[in-house]
Amino acid sequence: MSIHIEAKKGDIASTVLLPGDPMRAKWIAETFLENVLCYNDVRGMLGFTGSFKGKKISVQGSGMGIPSALIYCHELITDYDVKRLIRVGSAGSYQEDVHIRDIVLAMSASSTSGINNSRFINADFSPTADFGLLLKAANYANKNNLNVKAGNVLTSDEFYEDDPESYKLWASYGVLCVEMEAAGLYTIAA
Amino acid sequence: MSIHIEAKKGDIASTVLLPGDPMRAKWIAETFLENVLCYNDVRGMLGFTGSFKGKKISVQGSGMGIPSALIYCHELITDYDVKRLIRVGSAGSYQEDVHIRDIVLAMSASSTSGINNSRFINADFSPTADFGLLLKAANYANKNNLNVKAGNVLTSDEFYEDDPESYKLWASYGVLCVEMEAAGLYTIAA
Amino acid sequence: MSIHIEAKKGDIASTVLLPGDPMRAKWIAETFLENVLCYNDVRGMLGFTGSFKGKKISVQGSGMGIPSALIYCHELITDYDVKRLIRVGSAGSYQEDVHIRDIVLAMSASSTSGINNSRFINADFSPTADFGLLLKAANYANKNNLNVKAGNVLTSDEFYEDDPESYKLWASYGVLCVEMEAAGLYTIAA
Amino acid sequence: MSIHIEAKKGDIASTVLLPGDPMRAKWIAETFLENVLCYNDVRGMLGFTGSFKGKKISVQGSGMGIPSALIYCHELITDYDVKRLIRVGSAGSYQEDVHIRDIVLAMSASSTSGINNSRFINADFSPTADFGLLLKAANYANKNNLNVKAGNVLTSDEFYEDDPESYKLWASYGVLCVEMEAAGLYTIAA
Amino acid sequence: MSIHIEAKKGDIASTVLLPGDPMRAKWIAETFLENVLCYNDVRGMLGFTGSFKGKKISVQGSGMGIPSALIYCHELITDYDVKRLIRVGSAGSYQEDVHIRDIVLAMSASSTSGINNSRFINADFSPTADFGLLLKAANYANKNNLNVKAGNVLTSDEFYEDDPESYKLWASYGVLCVEMEAAGLYTIAA
Amino acid sequence: MSIHIEAKKGDIASTVLLPGDPMRAKWIAETFLENVLCYNDVRGMLGFTGSFKGKKISVQGSGMGIPSALIYCHELITDYDVKRLIRVGSAGSYQEDVHIRDIVLAMSASSTSGINNSRFINADFSPTADFGLLLKAANYANKNNLNVKAGNVLTSDEFYEDDPESYKLWASYGVLCVEMEAAGLYTIAA
Repeated sequence: MSIHIEAKKGDIASTVLLPGDPMRAKWIAETFLENVLCYNDVRGMLGFTGSFKGKKISVQGSGMGIPSALIYCHELITDYDVKRLIRVGSAGSYQEDVHIRDIVLAMSASSTSGINNSRFINADFSPTADFGLLLKAANYANKNNLNVKAGNVLTSDEFYEDDPESYKLWASYGVLCVEMEAAGLYTIAA
Repeated sequence: MSIHIEAKKGDIASTVLLPGDPMRAKWIAETFLENVLCYNDVRGMLGFTGSFKGKKISVQGSGMGIPSALIYCHELITDYDVKRLIRVGSAGSYQEDVHIRDIVLAMSASSTSGINNSRFINADFSPTADFGLLLKAANYANKNNLNVKAGNVLTSDEFYEDDPESYKLWASYGVLCVEMEAAGLYTIAA
Repeated sequence: MSIHIEAKKGDIASTVLLPGDPMRAKWIAETFLENVLCYNDVRGMLGFTGSFKGKKISVQGSGMGIPSALIYCHELITDYDVKRLIRVGSAGSYQEDVHIRDIVLAMSASSTSGINNSRFINADFSPTADFGLLLKAANYANKNNLNVKAGNVLTSDEFYEDDPESYKLWASYGVLCVEMEAAGLYTIAA
Repeated sequence: MSIHIEAKKGDIASTVLLPGDPMRAKWIAETFLENVLCYNDVRGMLGFTGSFKGKKISVQGSGMGIPSALIYCHELITDYDVKRLIRVGSAGSYQEDVHIRDIVLAMSASSTSGINNSRFINADFSPTADFGLLLKAANYANKNNLNVKAGNVLTSDEFYEDDPESYKLWASYGVLCVEMEAAGLYTIAA
Repeated sequence: MSIHIEAKKGDIASTVLLPGDPMRAKWIAETFLENVLCYNDVRGMLGFTGSFKGKKISVQGSGMGIPSALIYCHELITDYDVKRLIRVGSAGSYQEDVHIRDIVLAMSASSTSGINNSRFINADFSPTADFGLLLKAANYANKNNLNVKAGNVLTSDEFYEDDPESYKLWASYGVLCVEMEAAGLYTIAA
Repeated sequence: MSIHIEAKKGDIASTVLLPGDPMRAKWIAETFLENVLCYNDVRGMLGFTGSFKGKKISVQGSGMGIPSALIYCHELITDYDVKRLIRVGSAGSYQEDVHIRDIVLAMSASSTSGINNSRFINADFSPTADFGLLLKAANYANKNNLNVKAGNVLTSDEFYEDDPESYKLWASYGVLCVEMEAAGLYTIAA
């Protein structure tokens, strides 16, 4: 048991999908996994383990935003020996050719968060995906004619921006979409 | 209905308590309120309205961290006309004389968050409690011999710090305790 | 004697009022105190000790701006064992309902100063008033029907701003008024 | 002709390799290309166009450091309609398992440079490679049993660091190696 | 009359010496000038005009620190058409070969102040002396065998530093001495 | 031999002129020096030593931008015991009265570079010329009726700015012209 997860060691697979919404975790588990176990209900932040095509896999809600997601990632890595964390979730498009239902692979994550301001003082750390996972996903998608895009995403602390034009700057430098957790995951998993 | 709350207009009181944990919201509602209505279960982020000594009051889980709490505060203020948001929750003590079960009133909130870096560029905004609410709470506590302390708290983005000594600096400047949402609430409610 | 104050130990009370203007210090001493002693004239920065309703109290000019005020606060605390420093002075209103002759209690002080950039690197420290003094002042005012407001103030390094619109941002986040010393006092007294 | 390149329109291919050292540009052209034309000698910053397996390709020295490389990238993109810029060069390893003669594909580039401080004020932009080029290079390498690694690199302004330990922080967050131009190229090509 | 100076137009010379201490202003006026007029006593911040070898010259106390000095510089320039502001005052040596009674000419002023953080966002402005005045002073000193040094000085907001070792960094980059006003004067006079 | 310069110890004079363009170094050597030796051709970054009116002097190309120039300055100082580095080169005027063919002496260099962000964290270091060299140059120019100006220059990382109006801010604070290396040279030579 960790502070925010009540699972026993071994209850959680070494590969974990991380949607923000615990209800989406439940939907993924119920829709795609077999022999599902719900290993966590602390704070309503549901976590499930099951099997997918014979492989053990878990799905854990992370909550919204880097601070919440960091708690779950930290405990999964440190207390449950998780090796592969794969964030899944929705994002807001910043480009005209990124459409609803498109899949975006986040190669790296730009951010308005302050989490790396004290780690890398006055320098820019670029949180980056694991290349092995990225390459597998991209090649799988290409073989199956899935429409995926890959590139830079923005991880924002604010779902509601004061300035409705602020996305334009990021878009002009090629950022594909905005979400709220990737830069945190890519930083502490590095 | 707002994006993250499925309540109808009027379902939510103008005064809302905001614990981070939706289960604590449920516990507060069931323990202290009468005639309780659960108005939200989107993302498992429970919200309740009931009456306390004849007054209508709501309790809404905010999730952990500023990004999640900002979403709920924004929607409560903008879409449900909430007037008084009172964060309640636990915090980690930074001072030897702040003990478990002590009550701390956060006059203002220091922060490691980046949310004000783009609002107040290269200046320091000090998110501050509403003085009227603070004064009522303090005078109520004093009349009833409750042990409350009031002062500066730290709102952190990281529950797990890389540097276990980092709290010492904040403690030496009188910060009473660390939590994860107050600076966000005090900023957008300002 | 300290570097900038020529008083002997014991000449200064444990409670000190701190106006910026040494002439205002003189006026306060002559108007409200009995048995007044002028203990300092170094740099013309007058300091006085007298008695108010039987209690020993001092009034010390601090000069204008954080750097000057920090010198006097530091020496009063370190060399003269002063326990309560209470800045008094005028401020420029940032809100339509803060009028000339209103009293503002500064709960905390936002700032454009760089003094905390090296203390709290890339984080925001919110300099905060002592709650005990604040509460006494507020309750005294309420009992005597004095019109006081309390909240966030801005401590600025520049009396003359390049951009005459810059106050609007601070005002929109509820800052009550602008002055030039509080954030320094609240930081080193913390 | 642009300010720093004396080529005529059409002299430069739409794909350009960018080594820092103009002598390496010459070596690449003489070793791998046929029908080589030297189109630039301004400032000794040699540029060549030739054919590789029937395809027109150019090689342009960029000099060392982001400021110099930005000049050549800007003019190649703006004045010569170059579509694919591929930086090639040596880098210093930050990881024990990155050896001399290993190939590193830079998915994204962290940086100590200030070039994005004014573009993205107080936020972190993560300059990112073009995914199409990255994927082709990775899959080509895998098919041909070439040892490539891909991930985060550091683009530094200083070949000689004041603090010889500074690399350890970057290494602990998985940065593979250090070089001096990629973050600039990935930013303006975005 | 300006807000902080009660002189009439014409009372102040176009060349003004600026010591921090108003008592030093008085000493300079009484020691070196003839036909002295005291044109200001507001806030005890004395200002004098007299003649030196037949030329009209003024001496104005500025108080300690950039915020106070900026007020007097601004009003002297804007309200009294002053053309030449020459700060005179004491400074703390950062170099072994800068001795008591040496004269230092401040070519430019490094700073810990935040005043240029909002003027030059995330860039470094180097406040610089007027070259004409500097050259005259240097050549006069050389002709008269006066021992002057010239170079970089540090303008600090804090007379009392938390970290007593902090001067070593500045000293290692050649900063000659520390004072509290020059960077402000050189910025607004630019 | 250093990493980027193939000269032997003693091949380089203790005074070195530093143009950015190696072709300009060649032109200077061929035009003004006698008995010229070319001591470096690594990376085409030419360096020459010769005699000028009987004094041994060298001219070394530095490339464009601080990162490139720092490499050459570091090696010249550390590996070749060079004592006087004098940057010569062209600059873009920021003032109406700074004309083509005017000579500007850079007293100090403002900068958009990030090189001092990690040396002087959240403070502003003002890289400053050596006063002895500056004074000699100024007095020589005055005696020979050469039109020189001296003051603040801007060292920029970007030859091509995103915002064509960005120079106006620097110009309004008296910056004379913009170039790309001085702040780096003045920092590491300090």
